[in-house]
Amino acid sequence: MEDFVNNTQFGKAKKLIDFAQNIIVISHRSPDADAVGANIALATALKKIGKNVFSACTDALPSNLKFLKGTETFAQKFNSLDFDLLITVDCGSLRQIEFEPEIARFRKTGKTFINFDHHASNDFFGDINIVETKCAATCELLYYFFNFCDFEIDFKQATALLAGIYYDTGRFMHSNTTENNLNIAAELLEKGADFSSIIKNLYKTKSFEQLKLWGLIFNRARINDKNIVISAVTKDDLFECGASNEHINGAIDYLNTVAETKFCLLLTEDDSQIKASVRTQREDLDLSKLSSIFGGGGHKKASGFSISGKIQKDIEVKWRIGV
Amino acid sequence: MEDFVNNTQFGKAKKLIDFAQNIIVISHRSPDADAVGANIALATALKKIGKNVFSACTDALPSNLKFLKGTETFAQKFNSLDFDLLITVDCGSLRQIEFEPEIARFRKTGKTFINFDHHASNDFFGDINIVETKCAATCELLYYFFNFCDFEIDFKQATALLAGIYYDTGRFMHSNTTENNLNIAAELLEKGADFSSIIKNLYKTKSFEQLKLWGLIFNRARINDKNIVISAVTKDDLFECGASNEHINGAIDYLNTVAETKFCLLLTEDDSQIKASVRTQREDLDLSKLSSIFGGGGHKKASGFSISGKIQKDIEVKWRIGV
Repeated sequence: MEDFVNNTQFGKAKKLIDFAQNIIVISHRSPDADAVGANIALATALKKIGKNVFSACTDALPSNLKFLKGTETFAQKFNSLDFDLLITVDCGSLRQIEFEPEIARFRKTGKTFINFDHHASNDFFGDINIVETKCAATCELLYYFFNFCDFEIDFKQATALLAGIYYDTGRFMHSNTTENNLNIAAELLEKGADFSSIIKNLYKTKSFEQLKLWGLIFNRARINDKNIVISAVTKDDLFECGASNEHINGAIDYLNTVAETKFCLLLTEDDSQIKASVRTQREDLDLSKLSSIFGGGGHKKASGFSISGKIQKDIEVKWRIGV
Repeated sequence: MEDFVNNTQFGKAKKLIDFAQNIIVISHRSPDADAVGANIALATALKKIGKNVFSACTDALPSNLKFLKGTETFAQKFNSLDFDLLITVDCGSLRQIEFEPEIARFRKTGKTFINFDHHASNDFFGDINIVETKCAATCELLYYFFNFCDFEIDFKQATALLAGIYYDTGRFMHSNTTENNLNIAAELLEKGADFSSIIKNLYKTKSFEQLKLWGLIFNRARINDKNIVISAVTKDDLFECGASNEHINGAIDYLNTVAETKFCLLLTEDDSQIKASVRTQREDLDLSKLSSIFGGGGHKKASGFSISGKIQKDIEVKWRIGV
């Protein structure tokens, strides 16, 4: 077991699970592969030890995660009084779970809930908080928990856990890639994780509309005299490509691969506002400060803000931000 | 040691190395991260046991590999008579090495050479041929060889080996990703491999010209009535983006991520010819057959061919291939 894992907390969580019979496992809204993979793997483990388990998420699951066995049983509504233990996975705060009235009702009964997460921003909203920021993914954390509990991992759980780790490490490209999670990935493959389905569904199912939109974003990019890569997307662009706002996601990571630039900025028209996203590869910049000037926020290397206005056709050329 | 590794061949290679004093290690032309990483890691290992070692490649090394320590000593010329053992890494055939007159001179002296490779197409041109197609990379094969020889791997060698494995598994996205090479990657990280430099240099150094060119290729793509994604690049496009032919490399892999399509086709103007590259995700197509109709070839999922002509402005719309 890795030394950063808190066995005392694991022990407390295991005891709560042992005493419970009806358990609900909740993923955060706008669920991703880690939130869904963790939910499925944990729910399966608990069912195997005889518990009645229910998986929930306030939002419908994205279609590219439906290859994971178990996603078909997720509910978007539930009655909290049906359960005697509530477990959240990959949720940094109660706000990310939604289901507020149900959560409040559950709390009033005096029943407990467990918070499994890996986000540094976690606000410890649970009764038992197992928050390990050294884990790249909640799926990595659950792998340690399963080992602690001597829970066997079958090939479906292995696929779910690997999907989460693969996604949250950015295909083993982010700096949270470690010997620990590479070793775990290897072990999950050995246990029969369906690697080719993960790759195919998470990364090889771009829509044609997204391809065209990204093309437009890339081809239109400019580098200004401050060495900043800038591109923009208007509502007309979305219409022209048959694309929607969600298709913009991810494009900025490619703008951020241009060598020897300061940072990149992607402007998106959103009703009466312009949404600005910024990313950098550089260690010596703090983009959260830049965004906070405009009332936004985020991390040092990735942040965002909104300003009023519309994007003019020539804005990529005329737009300037001094830093 | 993995059971597919041939210890008898390893033993023979080790003996030849033990008897030699002056050794040349050669990478294939148009060298990639596996060819260069394998060369550096092996040359370093041999130097540590007291050999005089020289690294060579007929082509200059690409600038994105120059972060690897040891690349500064690569030579593009050598006198084969200075050496008593020649080792090729990652080379499928003598044609890929070039240096023909030197190789012929070397052979005439009756001295031997060792061929370390993982390509199925390897034609066993060496005296000792250590060709393991179950290895995703020659760097993976060398890892097993180093273990066999009890060679320690230092952090510079770990970086070189990981670069090769990372590159040849397509960032652990290709189907040659295995529990073995993920475990090795984990161990190399533990030995101090400089992961962030690998990611930065191999994947986060796109040129601005390439970004604009890829944008044009993506935005211009069409899906025809046979469900084939088609795009095209003319010489004028390259000029307009300030790009060169090498910037086209890799773009087709993104065309191939569009869901539910048959295959994708990228046409490139090349002097008086049009170069056609095709890729598919589907298991039931054989694109090598398609390309062979036009005098080309390749693999089932990735092939190419050339035809005479020029790309017309509206060719993406009018171009049809029936299969």
